[in-house]
Amino acid sequence: MDLVLLPKAFSILNSKPNKSALKENDGIEQPDSISASSVEHIQQFRRKQPSAEELISNIVKGDKVALSRAITLVESTSATHLEKANEVIKGCLPYANNSLRIGITGVPGVGKSTFIEAFGKYLTSIGKKVAVLAVDPSSSISHGSILGDKTRMEELVKDENAYIRPSASGESLGGVARKTREAIILCEACGFDTILIETVGVGQSETAVHSMVDFFLLLNLAGAGDELQGIKRGIMEMADAIVINKADGDNIKRARLAKVDFNRALHLFPQKSSGWSPKANTCSALTNEGISDVWETITDYFTLTKENGYFDKKRKEQSQYWMLETINEQLKLNFYNHPEIQKLLEENKKAVQNNEISPFAAAQLLLNTYKGS
Amino acid sequence: MDLVLLPKAFSILNSKPNKSALKENDGIEQPDSISASSVEHIQQFRRKQPSAEELISNIVKGDKVALSRAITLVESTSATHLEKANEVIKGCLPYANNSLRIGITGVPGVGKSTFIEAFGKYLTSIGKKVAVLAVDPSSSISHGSILGDKTRMEELVKDENAYIRPSASGESLGGVARKTREAIILCEACGFDTILIETVGVGQSETAVHSMVDFFLLLNLAGAGDELQGIKRGIMEMADAIVINKADGDNIKRARLAKVDFNRALHLFPQKSSGWSPKANTCSALTNEGISDVWETITDYFTLTKENGYFDKKRKEQSQYWMLETINEQLKLNFYNHPEIQKLLEENKKAVQNNEISPFAAAQLLLNTYKGS
Repeated sequence: MDLVLLPKAFSILNSKPNKSALKENDGIEQPDSISASSVEHIQQFRRKQPSAEELISNIVKGDKVALSRAITLVESTSATHLEKANEVIKGCLPYANNSLRIGITGVPGVGKSTFIEAFGKYLTSIGKKVAVLAVDPSSSISHGSILGDKTRMEELVKDENAYIRPSASGESLGGVARKTREAIILCEACGFDTILIETVGVGQSETAVHSMVDFFLLLNLAGAGDELQGIKRGIMEMADAIVINKADGDNIKRARLAKVDFNRALHLFPQKSSGWSPKANTCSALTNEGISDVWETITDYFTLTKENGYFDKKRKEQSQYWMLETINEQLKLNFYNHPEIQKLLEENKKAVQNNEISPFAAAQLLLNTYKGS
Repeated sequence: MDLVLLPKAFSILNSKPNKSALKENDGIEQPDSISASSVEHIQQFRRKQPSAEELISNIVKGDKVALSRAITLVESTSATHLEKANEVIKGCLPYANNSLRIGITGVPGVGKSTFIEAFGKYLTSIGKKVAVLAVDPSSSISHGSILGDKTRMEELVKDENAYIRPSASGESLGGVARKTREAIILCEACGFDTILIETVGVGQSETAVHSMVDFFLLLNLAGAGDELQGIKRGIMEMADAIVINKADGDNIKRARLAKVDFNRALHLFPQKSSGWSPKANTCSALTNEGISDVWETITDYFTLTKENGYFDKKRKEQSQYWMLETINEQLKLNFYNHPEIQKLLEENKKAVQNNEISPFAAAQLLLNTYKGS
């Protein structure tokens, strides 16, 4: 598409008299066969924003371009975009919810992208439609290291039955999480029946992802005997399965030992309310060994929780959780972004730390100011 | 004091004609030597409410009656009482903060009261002034089972250098925690240099207590090999020390084994930012065996954290935490107690669960209504 604009770009370059030793000769003149009206037509098409109705009807037809456009609306900070996004989501809701949502976490270096590539390919090979999303609040700084580099999932990205979308960026985890959760709805309406949500295993984003998925998978590596050290207890407690990745080559024996260790550790946790007993397994995203076993474990989980009612119960709780969470988050944002409060808050933080005022009296003072303003 | 009112009480009893077979004879007539004017004087004294200034000056003199009165003000729900409470706390703040605050938790039956009795007696015997407070949000229902029955600390309650106050009651954990945290300030101003804060090891109250103490002690029992099962991971992770209680009689061997188990488990947790390595010990509140060792561990902790600056840093962070926590809690209360919101919330909860509206759209709708009202 950029070729169309080439002659114009060249003419700009050439309008400056070029006296440098590095003077370039004029390029080959572009043929006049590209009609001005075609260019105009294409540009108009690109400018044209489809309406909410158009987006909805194309999304439910399985159109990935419409899906991407709708997700871009959800991620926008503009108020008009958000309004339109809400309309699209509302229209998609009746078509959503019919999927399995799987959260995948693990510390950097554990091979999340390679695992998702191998796992995703396996899923499409058995007829699934797979969407890969991510929650990575750090991506606004690192410009989306996670999934940003789509070439890391070379095979999956070319797969017609797969859709990969990098993490939304945003100021807060709450914002990123909201955008991802709405993207799930859109993907489901677009016909994707297996949603993989990737996150890095280092912070609070696990809790956010855990509260938007049905199944939570923790990727690990066989380490030097101290596998349990690096992972936060809370994350292990959330896991429905632990998969020890890179169980190939010289690593197989160590991976098997790690599996035994993790299974022992998992037994120490209290019984889950899902009725499910989490288990550890090994796999290799390189040789594909164990990849189908992971899927078997997950289907076992879904069979169990759909039968005992936990699946539906959890989804309803999650929806309610996100409503309340959004409210609580926004109430705080409104308060702490208030200009007068911002000033007073700094003063009172210091006063509280120096024991000049009790924390509760300071809080009361700030709340009264906010109420009065 | 109740004796003064005895004749009156008797006259009420006798005013009913008693025709039962269990009829009692009249008691011995009380002498008329109790003058009506004395009674009047005492009653007036009891009715008289000391001013905030009087309370402050008496508290800093070490007057336990003034201390109790001030804590009652803090616990009151009346607005005028709260205003006065804030005044008293403000006046006490400059005298506060000079103590060691120790949180003590453990599941019911672990022997918390007996431990605190033995530990408190030991502390007063080495010259400490000990205040015992409690955070037990359930006490409003069970009418203060924890510490409510002061007779469970028969010895300590009679000790001049000890002060025992049952848990405040309240609708919410936040409310109970606030009251206890303000009571700490008052106790410190009254000269108590060691504050023990008891809580039950079954809920979120541990987190609240953990964020108001310098040192967190977890009481445990030697069980049947599955010691780790019953305790929530999060609570073990918070503990600066684990003490296996009831290490006496037939139980000694099992307690020692449990100590080894716990020490191994503690090593699995990541290094604490205090630089302190938590440890497990055994003790018997019955034979006093190990009680002084507990204190030695705690003083080691204080020496370390006062030297490395963690002690002060943590106290400042805690003060700030409580200010922000109170604000966040109150913002939510204001919102969710709003009559219009309460109605809309129920409707939207249902709509969200039935996928008629996205959680975020519902949240936005409620927030807009709140803003507009």
